[in-house]
Amino acid sequence: MSDEFDVVVVGAGPAGENVADRAVRGGLTAAIVERRLAGGECSYWACIPSKALLRPVELAAEVARVPGLTLGPIDTAAVLARRDEAVSHLDDSGQVEWIRSVPVEFVRGHGRLDGPGRVAVSAEDGSVRTLTARHAVVLATGSDALIPPIHGLAEARPWTSHEVTAARRVPERLAVLGGGVVACEMAQAMHGLGARETTVLARGGLLGRMEPFAGELVAASFAEAGITVREGVQVTKVERPRPGGPVTLHLSEGPPVEADELLVATGRRPATGDLGLESVGLEAGRSVEVDDSMRATGVSDGRLYAVGDVNGRALLTHMGKYQARLCGDVIAARAKGEPDDLPGLRDVADGYGAPQVVFTDPQVCAVGRTESQARREGFDVRVVEYDLGRVSGAYLQGDGYRGMAKAVVDERRRVLLGVTFVGPAVGELLHAATIAVTAEVTLDRLWHAVPSFPTVSEIWLRLLETYGL
Amino acid sequence: MSDEFDVVVVGAGPAGENVADRAVRGGLTAAIVERRLAGGECSYWACIPSKALLRPVELAAEVARVPGLTLGPIDTAAVLARRDEAVSHLDDSGQVEWIRSVPVEFVRGHGRLDGPGRVAVSAEDGSVRTLTARHAVVLATGSDALIPPIHGLAEARPWTSHEVTAARRVPERLAVLGGGVVACEMAQAMHGLGARETTVLARGGLLGRMEPFAGELVAASFAEAGITVREGVQVTKVERPRPGGPVTLHLSEGPPVEADELLVATGRRPATGDLGLESVGLEAGRSVEVDDSMRATGVSDGRLYAVGDVNGRALLTHMGKYQARLCGDVIAARAKGEPDDLPGLRDVADGYGAPQVVFTDPQVCAVGRTESQARREGFDVRVVEYDLGRVSGAYLQGDGYRGMAKAVVDERRRVLLGVTFVGPAVGELLHAATIAVTAEVTLDRLWHAVPSFPTVSEIWLRLLETYGL
Repeated sequence: MSDEFDVVVVGAGPAGENVADRAVRGGLTAAIVERRLAGGECSYWACIPSKALLRPVELAAEVARVPGLTLGPIDTAAVLARRDEAVSHLDDSGQVEWIRSVPVEFVRGHGRLDGPGRVAVSAEDGSVRTLTARHAVVLATGSDALIPPIHGLAEARPWTSHEVTAARRVPERLAVLGGGVVACEMAQAMHGLGARETTVLARGGLLGRMEPFAGELVAASFAEAGITVREGVQVTKVERPRPGGPVTLHLSEGPPVEADELLVATGRRPATGDLGLESVGLEAGRSVEVDDSMRATGVSDGRLYAVGDVNGRALLTHMGKYQARLCGDVIAARAKGEPDDLPGLRDVADGYGAPQVVFTDPQVCAVGRTESQARREGFDVRVVEYDLGRVSGAYLQGDGYRGMAKAVVDERRRVLLGVTFVGPAVGELLHAATIAVTAEVTLDRLWHAVPSFPTVSEIWLRLLETYGL
Repeated sequence: MSDEFDVVVVGAGPAGENVADRAVRGGLTAAIVERRLAGGECSYWACIPSKALLRPVELAAEVARVPGLTLGPIDTAAVLARRDEAVSHLDDSGQVEWIRSVPVEFVRGHGRLDGPGRVAVSAEDGSVRTLTARHAVVLATGSDALIPPIHGLAEARPWTSHEVTAARRVPERLAVLGGGVVACEMAQAMHGLGARETTVLARGGLLGRMEPFAGELVAASFAEAGITVREGVQVTKVERPRPGGPVTLHLSEGPPVEADELLVATGRRPATGDLGLESVGLEAGRSVEVDDSMRATGVSDGRLYAVGDVNGRALLTHMGKYQARLCGDVIAARAKGEPDDLPGLRDVADGYGAPQVVFTDPQVCAVGRTESQARREGFDVRVVEYDLGRVSGAYLQGDGYRGMAKAVVDERRRVLLGVTFVGPAVGELLHAATIAVTAEVTLDRLWHAVPSFPTVSEIWLRLLETYGL
């Protein structure tokens, strides 16, 4: 068994798998190192299980808006069972088989950089195998949940995204620390699946990085569903006298919150703490900065790359995969001495602003820049908003459809800088915006792209009419 | 009350309303004539009520695919009640109010051309008011259901789209003549709302104008739901001895079909039979041919226009509205002596191939050219297909998700000529394709428009990967 490959990838999540796949398609040999499950966090403890938990909750909300349909209570056990199936019962043999079929050498163990072009892999049995990369080492180890330094918090062993998506039971009383995507999605999932008391402690409000109305509409929906959101308060101390027992969260104001489980969703940090970064002159625990070809900028030999969460560009599976595709391609091009600066070999999408869908009810999706980002960057901004509920297609989705759409226009070029949709099940509307933003399709051209009646997508017509076309 | 206007529009459906609105926005005065309800067929007897009937049926099918959810039987009375609300209980006062607020003069009655620039409106009381148009007369009278010349069919007084969407009861046994959009949608709606026996007599199969797999997937879904589809047979004779009683359809082969109601959905014809076309030298009962500014080509004075179904370009509400917007704008431009050939003043969308959504389960949506159309037109075609059910986002929608996507690529320019999606609730995926096709976004550019994970829209990535990107 050779230990020398053209490319060695550390981390077999979606990003790592895609780098290896593309490199092999480009004629190179590759090995991929994974210490947990091939398929990565996304497949087992993030995107996939969270959406499996959310889907019935979302659909139940849709049904409730349509007269003539009556839904029985959600069978939580059945939902958890389908979640288990969605994560292949935490068995990665199918993924490993796929990796080997590429073919890519799959190496199970903890991979650490061991100087330029070398990765030392420690197996569970303590043995170490050192892999050598002729052309590139690619870091794709992702990120871990961040536990903020609050007195007693780490000791309380709270849930993170990892544990909540793998939950075997729904807590009676759930406290959620954070207001971002994971906090919102999982508060809704657990509440919809039976949590009696769900309290979201969101110091900066919900979905603070998106257009303000996104968090407001989600907060309104949470209020209706009986999820408590406490904004502006800080957790000062956490007490959990008995492991797995009730938790008390003391706050900067107001009475403490008692819960049976605590979910911490306050951010992520790159999984680079124990990756041997020091051996190539980088600092452990930090993101690995890369250029637009995903090559690490702080390393002189030019053979280290980083894709996905670990480079800190956009903590989103699809962006990691995108970076991975171009990274695998660019490594192959460089290995073969081919041009390495074609448009397909550069990350341009992150520059436009990564698309993202939040699978709450209402769903929130956005691509590109928010109004405030665009103004901060000095664009000649004009904003167009339209009440999504006023579109015929939305009315036909159900009673009490509430939503909002906003387009941020670059007046100079008459192209879209950003688009945000909030409304039930609007996630699939996003890709039209992603194409329009990324391909810089002018408004005058979009005017001829006629949305079908009566879809919710007719919002495009309304936005353009409101703009003045 | 003046009888002279800059623009006189005949027909206050969505197309007519939009022409008048845009003309007034352009600084002109306008009158609109309607003999039935302001809002048109679409609002009362087509798109809107049909989707109100289909929505609960579609949602019930989605629920059935998600473990953990249990739906009670559909309350058909509640569904019909919401349909009634969706069509404003056939009261157009809100529409008339909106028309007057534009402001546009609303004239109720049967409008007929009375020579160039003149429209004679016969009111119900027999009085006639003649309107004169300084700049344009616009025909927007839509289309009527076609009743094919089958022995006994007209005498049986079958339902058309008009009656089925307004149904006050669901027939026990429904026979549907036709295999197009109306036939498929209404067979599914009635069956889902309680018809015990639904038989579709589709001589040329289902959805014959679309990619072949569209009709096949809908047929498979119909078979599972218990809807009978009989392809390749012709109805030779229809018997209905008692008005409103059972109907017998004799076929070219096999036993006759007995039903309690018969829906005829075999096509449309332009509503120009009694429109005074002869007075301007056109033939009654035919489509009014127009150029890309919607101006009638067979009339010498250049002041007659036609938008929507009546011009035969694309029998779709959204395309009628699109034509109407540019028609209103071009009339205003010409009236003011401004340039009338700007890109926004020409119908370019119809040339790319109108987008369309069929609201069955699975939904079918398509834009642009089918493969066979593209080949017939001599393009250098390459086709990419991908099983929609293999996308992670589709799996998360429910068990047994079945679908298919197909892209028709112009290899010379590397742009999309057409896209078809078939799958549950895929309708909102279409607009991305409509933008890509209409704006001629190259595949290499689409590669950087990253679909969000895990949405069904990730089909875009799969199609591009399958293409070879």
